[in-house]
Amino acid sequence: MLLCDIGNTSYHFLNDENDYKEGVTIFNPSSITQKVYYISVNSSVDKVLETLDNWINLKAHVDMNNYYETMGIDRIFACEAIENGVIVDAGSAITVDIVKNGVFQGGFIYPGVKAMAKTYENISPALAYSFNFELDLDKMPKNSGDAISYGYLKTLYSEVMAKGEDIFLTGGDADKFLSIFPNAEIDKLLLFNGMKKIIKKADLC
Amino acid sequence: MLLCDIGNTSYHFLNDENDYKEGVTIFNPSSITQKVYYISVNSSVDKVLETLDNWINLKAHVDMNNYYETMGIDRIFACEAIENGVIVDAGSAITVDIVKNGVFQGGFIYPGVKAMAKTYENISPALAYSFNFELDLDKMPKNSGDAISYGYLKTLYSEVMAKGEDIFLTGGDADKFLSIFPNAEIDKLLLFNGMKKIIKKADLC
Repeated sequence: MLLCDIGNTSYHFLNDENDYKEGVTIFNPSSITQKVYYISVNSSVDKVLETLDNWINLKAHVDMNNYYETMGIDRIFACEAIENGVIVDAGSAITVDIVKNGVFQGGFIYPGVKAMAKTYENISPALAYSFNFELDLDKMPKNSGDAISYGYLKTLYSEVMAKGEDIFLTGGDADKFLSIFPNAEIDKLLLFNGMKKIIKKADLC
Repeated sequence: MLLCDIGNTSYHFLNDENDYKEGVTIFNPSSITQKVYYISVNSSVDKVLETLDNWINLKAHVDMNNYYETMGIDRIFACEAIENGVIVDAGSAITVDIVKNGVFQGGFIYPGVKAMAKTYENISPALAYSFNFELDLDKMPKNSGDAISYGYLKTLYSEVMAKGEDIFLTGGDADKFLSIFPNAEIDKLLLFNGMKKIIKKADLC
């Protein structure tokens, strides 16, 4: 079974053995003849895939009543992957979503590492620091670098921890955030699990 | 007594009766002949003021051992204004500083309203919303606008409230944040109080 999660820059594939990526601009989806189950946040790729019979958009098989209309399909499939917990998906944005008994309870959006570093730098060149993920979050900072890191990381930490739920960490920056959420379960392929569940539920293969 | 807090864009004056602002690029500081007690984060204005005998930089009269070297002088004087509490100074950046028994305990820096709105917009045009300061922070959001507002405001709220201290709200966006921190004491002239305290302590007038 071949699964694919399509973002703005790449096709992220998972076959039975491993996962790999192909660039959106150079990859030709009609080069694949086997069945591909996919989700996509990329509307221009979507248009091409609609013309290809072997590419099956899983979006149609999700009960959207549990979610909201403008919610990213990647967030939805990550939610479908778990029964209970908080999902922290650390990419260009960090999405934090809560699932209870398999039902989405709501979620919020926080800036990703790169975007937030740029934000501080734009406010003042004096705030152009890399975030210190090893920061002691129990101590109020007394230097500029830590003051930025604490502002970015501790606020997110406090809010996520306040939920008192198991934490599932995914996304390109998941590794970085593992030092902030050491008890989190890290699973970079989380949303593929959501895809597998939907395929099974919808009896697609 | 004339006090002045100099930022990157304006001179903010306080005389005995009221406060007013003058633009950094058009105002000529040598047009004032009376004594002015000032603080400044603007190094190019600083150079001019050093040549004027009636402009007295209060920075020299603060015990810097309580602070750290790169800490903004405006944050320092806000801290000098209170004995106990959390200061939330909402400007182009939001600084959150803790003071206990008159001693600075540390603080952090969070993006200001304008900078953070720009951050979300830069991540995706789909995230270009104005923040909803009337948001119910007890409910996990189920729409994009609230998901952004919650990400920006609730994380800050949770961290500030966790300190369990009285909250002092100052800065240009203080009014907006009063709906988030309804029990805060709002004082847009807070750092002038710090200046008055230092003037008294140093026996300057």
